[in-house]
Amino acid sequence: MDRESVFWRIADGRLPPPPCAETLGIEFLRVTPESGSIEVKFEATSAFLNLAGHVQGGFLAAMLDDTMGPALVATLDPGEFAPTVSLNVQFHRPARVGALKGIGRVLLRGKEVCQLSGELLQDDKVVATGTATAVIRRMGTQTAWAAAQKPA
Amino acid sequence: MDRESVFWRIADGRLPPPPCAETLGIEFLRVTPESGSIEVKFEATSAFLNLAGHVQGGFLAAMLDDTMGPALVATLDPGEFAPTVSLNVQFHRPARVGALKGIGRVLLRGKEVCQLSGELLQDDKVVATGTATAVIRRMGTQTAWAAAQKPA
Repeated sequence: MDRESVFWRIADGRLPPPPCAETLGIEFLRVTPESGSIEVKFEATSAFLNLAGHVQGGFLAAMLDDTMGPALVATLDPGEFAPTVSLNVQFHRPARVGALKGIGRVLLRGKEVCQLSGELLQDDKVVATGTATAVIRRMGTQTAWAAAQKPA
Repeated sequence: MDRESVFWRIADGRLPPPPCAETLGIEFLRVTPESGSIEVKFEATSAFLNLAGHVQGGFLAAMLDDTMGPALVATLDPGEFAPTVSLNVQFHRPARVGALKGIGRVLLRGKEVCQLSGELLQDDKVVATGTATAVIRRMGTQTAWAAAQKPA
């Protein structure tokens, strides 16, 4: 963990969040790297609505990705990054324009492979749950990462 | 299938796409309901970028959702809708700002439960693949749908 990392400077409000998080209206409510948990707030806008007038599931998936990812990123050492390699989302009920709360947990903090879980709530009701696998890489290992990701 | 449905009027350019699809820059390239397949184009903007400068995985998931969903919706009868109940995405390589192509297929067209698959390409290289489960509902069955989705 590196309290001077870009992540922590964003979580502390010393730097603006990256564009994707800004688009999702992120706000960090609580980051507890010791227990690998996080609480974030999102703001669903009318730009996320589908034909039924609900928030499209993919945008809920994007919020879950931006809940689970930061739970892990908060624990990283300098020079480490952790791309998500798979994301699984279950949809429980429709979500509408307005605030959502994301709760993320690091279930397994391996040296490389990490397993994450998250849930997304609106008005204290679960609208979606998810799991993700992320792989910790060190700067300079991008080539190995790319090679590992290349289809055989 | 109903060529006068809202979906077909959107696919034919007679109606604008819903906000989420507009946000993702959707364009329908080919819709073949007979084989349950679809090709769509998306436009990743800088608003989708993560800290690494790549398109955040969640936004790729949103694009896959908007590829697989329409592949099924194109086959629906009047009064039917098909919410996605689960979405699984695998990330193959980073994507950048610009055009992406989504290819979706209906793997199983059940009376209710449908299984879908999709892939997302940039410059003819696969950046993400996904599967989804959707459940066909008829107007007026929302209560049953809500009940079925409610945690036990």
